[in-house]
Amino acid sequence: MKIALVGIGKIALDQHVPALAASPDWELAATVSRNGAVDGVEAWRDLDAMLEARSDIRVVSLCLPPVPRFDYAMKALQAGRYVMLEKPPGATLSECALLERAAHDLQLGIFATWHSREAAMVAPAKAWLADKTITSGRITWREDVRKWHPGQDWVFEPGGMGVFDPGINALSILTEILPRPVHLRAATLEFPENRQTPIAAHLHLSNGIEADFDWRQEGPQTWSIELETDHGTLALHDGGARLVIDGAVSAAPDATLSGEYPRLYARMAELVRAGQSDMDLSPMVLVADAFTLGRRVTAAPFHF
Amino acid sequence: MKIALVGIGKIALDQHVPALAASPDWELAATVSRNGAVDGVEAWRDLDAMLEARSDIRVVSLCLPPVPRFDYAMKALQAGRYVMLEKPPGATLSECALLERAAHDLQLGIFATWHSREAAMVAPAKAWLADKTITSGRITWREDVRKWHPGQDWVFEPGGMGVFDPGINALSILTEILPRPVHLRAATLEFPENRQTPIAAHLHLSNGIEADFDWRQEGPQTWSIELETDHGTLALHDGGARLVIDGAVSAAPDATLSGEYPRLYARMAELVRAGQSDMDLSPMVLVADAFTLGRRVTAAPFHF
Repeated sequence: MKIALVGIGKIALDQHVPALAASPDWELAATVSRNGAVDGVEAWRDLDAMLEARSDIRVVSLCLPPVPRFDYAMKALQAGRYVMLEKPPGATLSECALLERAAHDLQLGIFATWHSREAAMVAPAKAWLADKTITSGRITWREDVRKWHPGQDWVFEPGGMGVFDPGINALSILTEILPRPVHLRAATLEFPENRQTPIAAHLHLSNGIEADFDWRQEGPQTWSIELETDHGTLALHDGGARLVIDGAVSAAPDATLSGEYPRLYARMAELVRAGQSDMDLSPMVLVADAFTLGRRVTAAPFHF
Repeated sequence: MKIALVGIGKIALDQHVPALAASPDWELAATVSRNGAVDGVEAWRDLDAMLEARSDIRVVSLCLPPVPRFDYAMKALQAGRYVMLEKPPGATLSECALLERAAHDLQLGIFATWHSREAAMVAPAKAWLADKTITSGRITWREDVRKWHPGQDWVFEPGGMGVFDPGINALSILTEILPRPVHLRAATLEFPENRQTPIAAHLHLSNGIEADFDWRQEGPQTWSIELETDHGTLALHDGGARLVIDGAVSAAPDATLSGEYPRLYARMAELVRAGQSDMDLSPMVLVADAFTLGRRVTAAPFHF
């Protein structure tokens, strides 16, 4: 199936383009971007023009930042295309609900992707937790914003989500693996004096789960979820790539497909063939809750 | 049916108690409150003790502030009672989703009330708009926090919602009367230097609808929604009590029951008889979106 990629920035080049190149399902037939392009692929600057010219392209995958995403997604749907959304699926919950409704009304499909859920050990972690009760937990998601978003000021502008841009990856895993949903009890958000989104956040969730998100970590990066249950301890490290149960490392399952983005694109192919949507907003609801309920604290100014 | 009222503060005494006293459906059988009580009604300080002692009370209506509400609601459901929630139905969307799920699993019902939707001219406004397209609009919701929440510091604490406490009334009407849902495009939130929630907010919604919420209005108070459509202009004034279409005042419908709270309690009686829930969170989603996407601006310190 032919697909167009919209927003050719770091994440598109690092993840989407290689995943599509290696996939038996997809042919990257066009890109739409103000500045970026992919060698050997037809490049457009304007989405409307591409949609008009290339009616053979059935699917549009959006990798641009969350704030402009809604208008692009709605245009693609209204032009009869299936839509795949990088995380987070939009800047607001209300716009995501409208996109899902439009896809349904137009008999198309839309996929809100959560790449971290495709990490190798997430499914085994979910299976192990299925019959357990969580008694406490600790999420530690600490990385260096200068490394992962060099010079990307939009992450600190309204709608850019700040530290929830990586933090929502942790929440996407948590909401996937827990046997029962959690809710937010309290939160503290650290806003740099000169910025509009938090650079650090502490979330106090139900079931005694504490989450610590920080974008100021230099040196080794940490992406871990540790959960105590009534029948032992589970730890997911390296963003879901490594699973430790009661201190013993679990073997990775035999997967026909490895890699987060290859698995997302395989799932997208399934959704298109079945004419379905997959729009789970639960990680984004927890982020919206943190912005709504969070205590705001001022932190030192941040400059890239 | 016997009902217990939890949280005997200003809204309980001003609205809930008189509505229950005048209702043919309800008998106010108990109150639960740290400080308040109602003359001639059995008073409790502890919810658990009341639930234990009064198994004949089938419904619990919660009027306390949003942050502690979840634990009370969950306890009441787990004790087999139907639950009615003042607006907003909770401090977070995730906790409201859990309450709805619990009510369903326990074969009970829960009602997220939006009292402004029961204003006399909301239903006629909705009927008139049903076949129209909105081209622009202006919501003006300006009141004096010192008058309506005298000394209530919790409204400025995290989860207290600030100016969205009244603003969500406007959004509850808007989401009820519009023929198609809107989403939030941008927002500006004014946080007093010494407070955790906004005292004013400007929302830019889709369909060209602008909302102006302000809690600093002394003198006359304003609660108006004006909408331009492809077939004329509609204005709801006085919080939904007065409807003007193309400049002409509409007559109020003949209602068997007048008053926002009497109508809420009549609806609650219906839900209990039918074993149903009514948990529309769309006004709260727009507020969560405003906190997530809003640009934060610092305003002068506020003191009661």
